[in-house]
Amino acid sequence: MAQLDPHPLCGHNAAVATRVGFLGGTGIEGRGLALRFALAGASVVVGSRSEERARAAAAEYNALLGVDRIRGAANPDMLRESDIVFITLPYEHAPEAVSHAASDLRAGVILVDVTVPMVFRDGRAEFAEPAEGSNAERIAARIPKDARLVGAFKTIPAHVLAEIDTPLDCDDLVCGDSSEAKQAVIAACAAIPALRSLDAGPLSAARILERMTVLAVQLNRRYKRKGARYRVQGV
Amino acid sequence: MAQLDPHPLCGHNAAVATRVGFLGGTGIEGRGLALRFALAGASVVVGSRSEERARAAAAEYNALLGVDRIRGAANPDMLRESDIVFITLPYEHAPEAVSHAASDLRAGVILVDVTVPMVFRDGRAEFAEPAEGSNAERIAARIPKDARLVGAFKTIPAHVLAEIDTPLDCDDLVCGDSSEAKQAVIAACAAIPALRSLDAGPLSAARILERMTVLAVQLNRRYKRKGARYRVQGV
Repeated sequence: MAQLDPHPLCGHNAAVATRVGFLGGTGIEGRGLALRFALAGASVVVGSRSEERARAAAAEYNALLGVDRIRGAANPDMLRESDIVFITLPYEHAPEAVSHAASDLRAGVILVDVTVPMVFRDGRAEFAEPAEGSNAERIAARIPKDARLVGAFKTIPAHVLAEIDTPLDCDDLVCGDSSEAKQAVIAACAAIPALRSLDAGPLSAARILERMTVLAVQLNRRYKRKGARYRVQGV
Repeated sequence: MAQLDPHPLCGHNAAVATRVGFLGGTGIEGRGLALRFALAGASVVVGSRSEERARAAAAEYNALLGVDRIRGAANPDMLRESDIVFITLPYEHAPEAVSHAASDLRAGVILVDVTVPMVFRDGRAEFAEPAEGSNAERIAARIPKDARLVGAFKTIPAHVLAEIDTPLDCDDLVCGDSSEAKQAVIAACAAIPALRSLDAGPLSAARILERMTVLAVQLNRRYKRKGARYRVQGV
């Protein structure tokens, strides 16, 4: 974990900042999370199979922020430098990509799966139930023994994350079988404003969280909105 | 639908009040919903297999309200007088009880399933997945053709409903395959303060809603709270 100054934009004073990487950080989900973590004072590396594409994405994100806070790197370099690696790939590619990256993962690395297996049939979102029960469990079956997987941000729309002027104003439901890894992710998210992280239990809770996202997408369509997300009241 | 005066306690002016019945209204779920609907100006009949028990429950609820707003009746009488019938029985008894009551159901009656199939294993709440996918669909397979089933209040804790001084302060996610029935339930709930009803799609959405309740119960346990429930932000 690297030492970092208070962030000049948001004023957050993250005394100890986590080095956050993104496996496939050039898509909408990676973009939103990279921006939010950079604003929260984390050290951010956007990874891509193509170093050039990663650098271009980082330059674009930095231009949005107005400061150089985000680096772009080829995935193996990103993996070497990150304490927490967000898997921000399309859900169907994520398990294989993680499996492919196994040899580049640092021992003890924390992986964060944000994917939701969803298909559209007749314009309606449906849960594409993986044989393992959830995409999180599907990915977990493909990571090295010393890596730990946490599910997070599954229920928060990528484009809301990417609209950095929109307060998140919701809860993040975080699941995983390693309490330590889960707490590290929750701690890394603590500096993101207007976001509360809740421990949603073991990794298998992703079966619920992934379905909740499908419901949110259906609600968006029905109510002609784009940002349906959840807050847990009474907790 | 019966004409009703503004309610003396809550001041709600429900111009046209729905006659709401409860199949198995003497438990905690029936109690909470009967109280909330009575406060909202609905005409409420609490049903039970035992007329005596139904009357005793109604008397107790009226004592809480301070006015006689709720009647108790044997289930067949309750069914004859209700436009909307809430199924407030333990989840495992609900399908058979509804099947048993079939001959007493009025044509076109709207049934509302509030049950959640949940078991506790080693102190941990788990979704008891019915073969039909959800308890709502299990019940739907057992009702007469001219009855319509709506799922509602699945994600709102019974004891929060029963604490009438606690603002609900959450959303009710309402699902069903009959738009008309769903809209009738949403309309009947409109007079309940601090509750927003959202159309959550077809009855099969109960597969998501029932699991969300399991998650809420798990969150309650983890955070030592009792009232976890949901609000959808951004809609």
